[in-house]
Amino acid sequence: MKVGLKWIISFSVIAIVAIGGLFWNPAADIPDTREFLSEDKIVGADVAWILAAAGLVLLMTPGLSFFYGGMVGRKNVISTMLQSFIALGVISMVWVVVGFSLSFGESIGITIAGKHYGIIGNPLSYPFFSGVGNLPHKLMAPTIPFILFALFQMKFAVITPAIITGSFAERVRFISYLLFIVLFSIFIYTPLCHMVWHPEGLLNKYFGVKDFAGGTVVHMSAGFAALAGALVVGNRKNPHHEPSNIPYVLLGTGMLWFGWFGFNAGSALSASASAATAFGTTTIASASAMMTWIFFDRINGRSVSALGACIGAVVGLVAITPGCGFVSIQESLFIGFITAIVSNLMVNWKVLKKVDDTLDVFACHGVGGIMGMILTAIFAHGEKASLLHGGIDVFLHHMAALVLVSIFTFLGSLILYKLTDSMITLRVSEESENKGLDLSQHEECLQ
Amino acid sequence: MKVGLKWIISFSVIAIVAIGGLFWNPAADIPDTREFLSEDKIVGADVAWILAAAGLVLLMTPGLSFFYGGMVGRKNVISTMLQSFIALGVISMVWVVVGFSLSFGESIGITIAGKHYGIIGNPLSYPFFSGVGNLPHKLMAPTIPFILFALFQMKFAVITPAIITGSFAERVRFISYLLFIVLFSIFIYTPLCHMVWHPEGLLNKYFGVKDFAGGTVVHMSAGFAALAGALVVGNRKNPHHEPSNIPYVLLGTGMLWFGWFGFNAGSALSASASAATAFGTTTIASASAMMTWIFFDRINGRSVSALGACIGAVVGLVAITPGCGFVSIQESLFIGFITAIVSNLMVNWKVLKKVDDTLDVFACHGVGGIMGMILTAIFAHGEKASLLHGGIDVFLHHMAALVLVSIFTFLGSLILYKLTDSMITLRVSEESENKGLDLSQHEECLQ
Amino acid sequence: MKVGLKWIISFSVIAIVAIGGLFWNPAADIPDTREFLSEDKIVGADVAWILAAAGLVLLMTPGLSFFYGGMVGRKNVISTMLQSFIALGVISMVWVVVGFSLSFGESIGITIAGKHYGIIGNPLSYPFFSGVGNLPHKLMAPTIPFILFALFQMKFAVITPAIITGSFAERVRFISYLLFIVLFSIFIYTPLCHMVWHPEGLLNKYFGVKDFAGGTVVHMSAGFAALAGALVVGNRKNPHHEPSNIPYVLLGTGMLWFGWFGFNAGSALSASASAATAFGTTTIASASAMMTWIFFDRINGRSVSALGACIGAVVGLVAITPGCGFVSIQESLFIGFITAIVSNLMVNWKVLKKVDDTLDVFACHGVGGIMGMILTAIFAHGEKASLLHGGIDVFLHHMAALVLVSIFTFLGSLILYKLTDSMITLRVSEESENKGLDLSQHEECLQ
Repeated sequence: MKVGLKWIISFSVIAIVAIGGLFWNPAADIPDTREFLSEDKIVGADVAWILAAAGLVLLMTPGLSFFYGGMVGRKNVISTMLQSFIALGVISMVWVVVGFSLSFGESIGITIAGKHYGIIGNPLSYPFFSGVGNLPHKLMAPTIPFILFALFQMKFAVITPAIITGSFAERVRFISYLLFIVLFSIFIYTPLCHMVWHPEGLLNKYFGVKDFAGGTVVHMSAGFAALAGALVVGNRKNPHHEPSNIPYVLLGTGMLWFGWFGFNAGSALSASASAATAFGTTTIASASAMMTWIFFDRINGRSVSALGACIGAVVGLVAITPGCGFVSIQESLFIGFITAIVSNLMVNWKVLKKVDDTLDVFACHGVGGIMGMILTAIFAHGEKASLLHGGIDVFLHHMAALVLVSIFTFLGSLILYKLTDSMITLRVSEESENKGLDLSQHEECLQ
Repeated sequence: MKVGLKWIISFSVIAIVAIGGLFWNPAADIPDTREFLSEDKIVGADVAWILAAAGLVLLMTPGLSFFYGGMVGRKNVISTMLQSFIALGVISMVWVVVGFSLSFGESIGITIAGKHYGIIGNPLSYPFFSGVGNLPHKLMAPTIPFILFALFQMKFAVITPAIITGSFAERVRFISYLLFIVLFSIFIYTPLCHMVWHPEGLLNKYFGVKDFAGGTVVHMSAGFAALAGALVVGNRKNPHHEPSNIPYVLLGTGMLWFGWFGFNAGSALSASASAATAFGTTTIASASAMMTWIFFDRINGRSVSALGACIGAVVGLVAITPGCGFVSIQESLFIGFITAIVSNLMVNWKVLKKVDDTLDVFACHGVGGIMGMILTAIFAHGEKASLLHGGIDVFLHHMAALVLVSIFTFLGSLILYKLTDSMITLRVSEESENKGLDLSQHEECLQ
Repeated sequence: MKVGLKWIISFSVIAIVAIGGLFWNPAADIPDTREFLSEDKIVGADVAWILAAAGLVLLMTPGLSFFYGGMVGRKNVISTMLQSFIALGVISMVWVVVGFSLSFGESIGITIAGKHYGIIGNPLSYPFFSGVGNLPHKLMAPTIPFILFALFQMKFAVITPAIITGSFAERVRFISYLLFIVLFSIFIYTPLCHMVWHPEGLLNKYFGVKDFAGGTVVHMSAGFAALAGALVVGNRKNPHHEPSNIPYVLLGTGMLWFGWFGFNAGSALSASASAATAFGTTTIASASAMMTWIFFDRINGRSVSALGACIGAVVGLVAITPGCGFVSIQESLFIGFITAIVSNLMVNWKVLKKVDDTLDVFACHGVGGIMGMILTAIFAHGEKASLLHGGIDVFLHHMAALVLVSIFTFLGSLILYKLTDSMITLRVSEESENKGLDLSQHEECLQ
């Protein structure tokens, strides 16, 4: 096998990062006492829960491997799984080197009416996690070590590109995919994360966007990147196939559901009543969406399927993500219900079917995220917090933010795909596609 | 495909529940200060552990999907898995709407010698989880938000009907099954749960039943409902088959074992030495039962099998469930040992074999639960707490309670099966059975 | 099937242990107040995290079942999985009866220059876990119940023999394997554990070995036992085969990675910044090693494979284990990188290939453990703690200890294999090997 230059470069980058990191001397990092609290402000119970939660969010990525891997055709199971799984490697490294700093570093942005609004973090704030230590950050997570916050956030950065993979499954080149997700992570994910979750972020501070656990940052961004990806990569030659392994889909859904408790209830960043509420709304929205999906399928003449139950459950989880800490259990029942119907209609909508989004990532994650954001802006509790609580302003700001996020993530991804494609062709050859990516990309196959 | 009325009704029920819930206004819920403690009584460490534990118990249901799914024949794997999995949807919704209220609402019951003994909770105490908020309940779980207690309990309600499914696997109609588990949950599970775990419950207060984590409520009730189910639904046409996928059984067992720590050690409702003890007795009883099962199989001329190891481990987990917080590590070794032998004898007992309990649910969960309850009444520590600690009274009360629970759950389930059957036939047609439920019920199959 | 004496003995041993344990009366255990703290020293948050962590470590053993099971040939999947899984039964029982006492009981050892250095624990200190109660031990884990410490440690003892199984997979007799791991656990694991982790232990107190989570105790010991095992059992007749199920390997890796957080971050024995750091170094070393492995494979003319990604990730986890709490995130990047290269070279080294270590246990766990120990001695933070921090002494002591541990575990295992073999032949017959162990040992097979 001839070794292409691209592989030598890839290895070299890893080597440079791994060795280069040693030259940052963390012992020299003196934490800025204006930003950090003292060690005795750490609350052990919060640490205990966020450690567990961060582990749970890690498990979602292998969960996604099985959720997606079971749906694709037999010749593409391993490659599809690996695309999710490898994000645990690539994005974790990106996050350490520069991603966290771009997301939560010193806010760089614009000034509107004399006030600063952040667009992206300063890459020099925490390069190679330097400055990310044991003390809690005053604003971002005042009861847990800053490093734990950075690691918890890392898992969100990891799963987002993994979600995208479902749209261009069965035809994307592995190395181009790796390049794309590095670019996506740096140019789409981190600024969005900064704008939504940094205290100074534009969408947060100016638009007042409420996104408890990642409706915009994770699901909308992945959904729109998926749509753009399917468009750029183009339709498969043989799009029809039966899901190769429904039990894998069930396993993946179980792992996702389990992990989502870390994702949503962990986003409270404390072992508190708020975490408990998020736990409850999460599981109930999922339950409600699962049941709605299968019965809605059935009254529309389709069969009640395990696949439908799994997709419904995940759509419910997506939908509740932005609002999980802001709404009541009763409202989560409704959020799961209505989002399942809208997503189900989108999955079966002829116009959208023209785009070969292999595993309906846009219809599930994109639409689920949008619905979740809208419903959060309708139901979120608190004075003037949402449409139903006297906050028409908040609602309209949310809608405007939605439009901005949609445009940014869709167009941004489109440009990054084109850029990637110009460097390394995104799509595999027709021969490789026919052979299946498992064999053509990895020389592995299901027995 | 013609859409039957039953499906339209099913969808409508979901819609009514999802929309109807919005009209409960949780903001109007003023918690009764006689029942609830103030927020500062919440103990963060307990919240951290119960959040994790509730997640673990959720994972048990997908775990059960794989434990059962791997044992049935190839044509019924997906349908068997879905039967467990769907309980996460159906029962979660039932629990929110009325189940929790029936289990832990204001006690409704009988008066004996001037004292009140609860039979069931008032459905109007917490309909749609209203009144279930952030403050800890004085009696039920004084250190964690009441909503967290309600969610932790929810996962127990979810897994119980899932356990039943093993007995009538390969021949039950999906929609009838859904109807049955709703009825079972409302008419068997919730009153039993109230009687055993509510402070005013009859079996708790009058009989002094000790059931740390669900020997009666979960395992005996599921076991007897399974026996009744196998009797009502009748034997399969072709009962003989090889387990379709032993690795799935191993995976399911691993997930169950892992999740059971949440189930048992979580039932301490605190991050305490009591939880640690329950953790220990749980894993040791399981280890002991696993080894006993395979060696007992072997000295009886059967082979040492992975299937046997898995079943043994689960029987040990069932057996220790009621006593896990009350006995010592040494006693848990014995509990695992003796229950494995009794369950193994039951599984291979000719008389019981006449009933086609597909996956031996009665012999494992029913008998395991009974053994666990008896052994708890023999070994439980504390003054006059059990037979070996001077509590012959406690022991006899336990035995009486066992008989009552057995009769109630068996006859009650029998009636509910008949009722279900009169509305929608429980058993699929012979043609569908031959075809396998995966295809006939869900139009899905293993590749 | 004729029942051999060995099975009757096996069952009898279980029976004696299970019944015998009842005659220890734990109520009579009066904890020594010089050794134990009072109950109010228990820190709830630490209990919450260690409960979760102990559960996570349990999950690693089924994880290993899938990691290994997916790599072997089709006729040996179930038997390979069961070999890992059964350790949860056997070793848990050994640990309760005598293992914990041998590891952490009163130190028995030698005197050098008037000072005592422990070689092994007194088996009469905590037989059958008596004396292992709710109070925290002053020295070993001063903020959690001693029983929780003993249970957390148990999971480490369980997984170690499970790791070994990969080397002699596809040809070892099940019952001989069980006997060997009992001997290994008692004669290799427990003294090593005592010497490294007991406060009085020789390697700890005299050599100053730093092993945060088990680089020597778990991975080096398993690695050298694996090498010895492959040598004693001999090469397979037909060593060439394709991995039977790559998705299982991915699943196993996901479970291992998830569980490793319990293993490494749990080894802080507290919900603290130290745990958070260990969490971070663990995931980053794994990410770095995964990416290094696949690119290194590719630039050496092999394909980028899912199998490679999984093995790389696990090698990274092994490498960071001893140092996870002592090094920085940047250093963990490097540790993952350099160990992946060394292990990869070893896996592909012709000399080592002559030994039929089926799943490269020595090249991954043995070499990974050695690399981890060396790198810890180079990078560990703290005054004079390592080579780079002015501690050349520490470094040299570490190197000496490495040599001692290697010799002890290799020769010790060799003797135990020979001993086992003399009692029950280790290797199955050629006929059984050809048939595959699933059928020949367990009468089970993949459908």
